[in-house]
Amino acid sequence: MIDALREDVVPHVSVAAVLDSRSSPEEASAAFDVADIVVEAATVDAARTLLPEVVKRGKDIIVCSCGVFAERGFDVEPFDSGPGRVLLPTGAIGGFDVLAAATRAGSRDARLTHTTIKRPGALGIEECLDAERTVFRGSAREAALAFPRTSNSSVALALATLGLDRVEVVVIADPAAASTRHVVEWESPLGRYELTFENAIDPASSGRTSAITAWSVIEVLAALPLGIGPGAVVLGPLRRW
Amino acid sequence: MIDALREDVVPHVSVAAVLDSRSSPEEASAAFDVADIVVEAATVDAARTLLPEVVKRGKDIIVCSCGVFAERGFDVEPFDSGPGRVLLPTGAIGGFDVLAAATRAGSRDARLTHTTIKRPGALGIEECLDAERTVFRGSAREAALAFPRTSNSSVALALATLGLDRVEVVVIADPAAASTRHVVEWESPLGRYELTFENAIDPASSGRTSAITAWSVIEVLAALPLGIGPGAVVLGPLRRW
Repeated sequence: MIDALREDVVPHVSVAAVLDSRSSPEEASAAFDVADIVVEAATVDAARTLLPEVVKRGKDIIVCSCGVFAERGFDVEPFDSGPGRVLLPTGAIGGFDVLAAATRAGSRDARLTHTTIKRPGALGIEECLDAERTVFRGSAREAALAFPRTSNSSVALALATLGLDRVEVVVIADPAAASTRHVVEWESPLGRYELTFENAIDPASSGRTSAITAWSVIEVLAALPLGIGPGAVVLGPLRRW
Repeated sequence: MIDALREDVVPHVSVAAVLDSRSSPEEASAAFDVADIVVEAATVDAARTLLPEVVKRGKDIIVCSCGVFAERGFDVEPFDSGPGRVLLPTGAIGGFDVLAAATRAGSRDARLTHTTIKRPGALGIEECLDAERTVFRGSAREAALAFPRTSNSSVALALATLGLDRVEVVVIADPAAASTRHVVEWESPLGRYELTFENAIDPASSGRTSAITAWSVIEVLAALPLGIGPGAVVLGPLRRW
């Protein structure tokens, strides 16, 4: 993502600073002061401390470790008052546009399931499986607590639609899986949607992260100057934030 | 959509005026003056004349009759200078979020196909078919010219991704189709996505329009005060446009 931004793939967006786990609090503070937007792409632990600090400065933060919102005692409501905004990318999946619209149309009789199929190793399963096995079935909130590193898109999907406790998440370990696959199934009186995402892996992620995930963050960065998006078609001049 | 807005489903958005084919130019002009946003939900012919008039007033317009952009001599470039913006809803489909991100990641080796399966009657086919029949295969631009009333989401999808001449559209008449089905298939080095949308029909549309379409417009209206969306998750205060 940093490389892409340095190659100017997004007009009007550039990298002000890059922090990592070795950065000092002073370096972090200085970076937050100069940046318009902060992108968290670290861990749930990092997100837990970063979020309030950035938001209270009136800066927007794009959070990749969405699992933090599933933790009891870390509610989303306090962020409604800002002054900064918390923005969640679609991550490894998509269709939040139509699913958010369908949710607004009526969620009472709606059902939403997010099934993730990964190689056992990518789920931290060492033993050798000879067939696929369902290793988890529960709410998006429970999934995030059980698989914090694999549930970020489930949490974002839930917060975009029916909420953390009403979206069902299924995690399947498949020794035959060549890549990671996500299946998002929606059913309501408005319609039935089945969205399948088979993603190439980001080689820099030691097999854990889909390459599309970084681009979903870039899509949010590109949307902010437009004042709309991701995915919305805009013909016309920029609205700078 | 008008009913929903009058029931306040979208905070900070209300209906200023409603125009129809019997409205006078004076009524239209007065409505454009008071509105912040104009929603075109009429015909390609109406869109062709409305768009420039609204945009030159510096007002944003949400265009449902996207087929207008497929017409030669009606290019999108002039709208880049505004001052108003043209916004296209996802209509009967979705996934523009992930598909726009995948397009930005690299479109050279990408393929995108939008297949629509409808009852023959909904495609204007009177004869009785005993099996499904492919009635069209071509670019999104050609589809919009051949089926202006059924191709709006193909045009929006194309403008969000690979463009009108690189997105393949297939239209299938299926006498056994109980509802309208859309299948959007993306393939690129980043991944393979298959998105299936089976929509309930809007009873007010004489069998032609999916109910989700109106909600996709509402989703754009809801996104504008946020300064991001459709489908993007935002925790935090509104940014008014």
